Amino acid sequence: MFEKVTIVGVGLISGSFALALKDKGFAKKIIGVSRTEASAQKAKELGIIDAALPLEEAVKQSDFIYVAIPVDATIPVMKQVMDLMNEKQIVADAGSTKMVLCESLSNHPMRKRFVATHPMWGTEYSGPEAAVREAFSGRSCVICEKEKSDVEAVNMVENIYRTLGMNITYMNPENHDIHAAYVSHISHITSFALANTVLEKEKEEDAIFELAGGGFESTVRLAKSNPTMWAPIFMQNRENVLDVLNEHISQLRKFKASLEKENLPYLIELMENANKIKRILK
Amino acid sequence: MFEKVTIVGVGLISGSFALALKDKGFAKKIIGVSRTEASAQKAKELGIIDAALPLEEAVKQSDFIYVAIPVDATIPVMKQVMDLMNEKQIVADAGSTKMVLCESLSNHPMRKRFVATHPMWGTEYSGPEAAVREAFSGRSCVICEKEKSDVEAVNMVENIYRTLGMNITYMNPENHDIHAAYVSHISHITSFALANTVLEKEKEEDAIFELAGGGFESTVRLAKSNPTMWAPIFMQNRENVLDVLNEHISQLRKFKASLEKENLPYLIELMENANKIKRILK
Repeated sequence: MFEKVTIVGVGLISGSFALALKDKGFAKKIIGVSRTEASAQKAKELGIIDAALPLEEAVKQSDFIYVAIPVDATIPVMKQVMDLMNEKQIVADAGSTKMVLCESLSNHPMRKRFVATHPMWGTEYSGPEAAVREAFSGRSCVICEKEKSDVEAVNMVENIYRTLGMNITYMNPENHDIHAAYVSHISHITSFALANTVLEKEKEEDAIFELAGGGFESTVRLAKSNPTMWAPIFMQNRENVLDVLNEHISQLRKFKASLEKENLPYLIELMENANKIKRILK
Repeated sequence: MFEKVTIVGVGLISGSFALALKDKGFAKKIIGVSRTEASAQKAKELGIIDAALPLEEAVKQSDFIYVAIPVDATIPVMKQVMDLMNEKQIVADAGSTKMVLCESLSNHPMRKRFVATHPMWGTEYSGPEAAVREAFSGRSCVICEKEKSDVEAVNMVENIYRTLGMNITYMNPENHDIHAAYVSHISHITSFALANTVLEKEKEEDAIFELAGGGFESTVRLAKSNPTMWAPIFMQNRENVLDVLNEHISQLRKFKASLEKENLPYLIELMENANKIKRILK
């Protein structure tokens, strides 16, 4: 058990992680680092953190530092953290992109005390109020460039994630970012675009949303997600996201063509192919 | 309470409806009409129906007939049913499109014994095994052309849906089909297309789906839906679906443009606009 753990960011991921660290007996005291006083206060009220401190003070007294903030902020903050760290401390991030971060830290003298992770869990909510207990369980956690981290640091981080019920997968940052584009980033973009589609229509028609049922809700749920978190993810992973987005638009055009030509067999063929997703989803 | 109710189709909607009729005390005996012996047998085993009969025999002895089959089959079957009915019997359908059906039945001598309904509930599963108790609750049910049905028939059907916990909305068939395209049909098309997008990718990369998490699952869930049910819906409502699909593709292109041009403020603007969906989703 760690005496003190610092979470940088007191939101959905870091907050849920902090709650889990306490619940599973990994940490005695959690220190929160937050950009805003209000979030720090809220995180204290919710029992997510025991104290809030500025980054430098927090890092200096912590055994383990967990950084879960928007991916554009992660790079400078992680450098700051690693500049402050000694050879016994461990730091991990939880970002949804890995290539830019890993590249930018590759020559840092403390690189081996850093474990690059992406626990693939989340909800469409954000902020300390979004933190929940029993998060992460049953989901995958990707660890990148395992070989660049000290074995003991990787083991420690893996032990935490496994205790939280996650399945560890190893990937290089390039493959991680490609896969994340397919299984996560594109889902968010289609949800955002679908929300904009119906909101555009709503300008003309009033009663439309009385009808919004379960199917609509589940496909558009992610459109509630926080732009401050997601815009930097899409930007950092823009080449992969553009690849997937182009493929997705071309798949939608096939549906369009089948309808325009009233080609029922082709429409059914497209849908039957999509049904193959059953073997992948549980 | 009805002595005998016939459900035409023994699947997700009709099956769940039959279970609810029994649970809420609306029907003593449920007769099922099914195209296949296997489904009828399964529905009996599951306690959804008490007996299976051919359409003609079933209709003749029933007080109330509920038709929930693919929308292309609904038109001829509904005509058959209404040709067999007397002035005391009531029939309702549960189809996801209303314009073509209502038009095709508009001059039938029994039109006033028909109530055109669309209970906006469903899951991605189909067949008698997909039927569940406590379905429909909290969702909207659209009734079209109320004025063309006998008041007593409409009241009876509304009473059932209200007892099931549904909110009744009235619309003309044209508006129903436009709205259904926006809040239901497009969600299914994007899900099917998203499934095809990732399945296309899977041909190149193997491990991709180990990572599929919650966001992916919720946006792609509907891609498991039955093509036999959904293809006729899209075809019958093709003009509205094409309108929405074109709008959706144009919304996706905006995301594409923001990424291609690395225009972060525009990307954030698109996402913040999508966030407005919060006031519509509960």
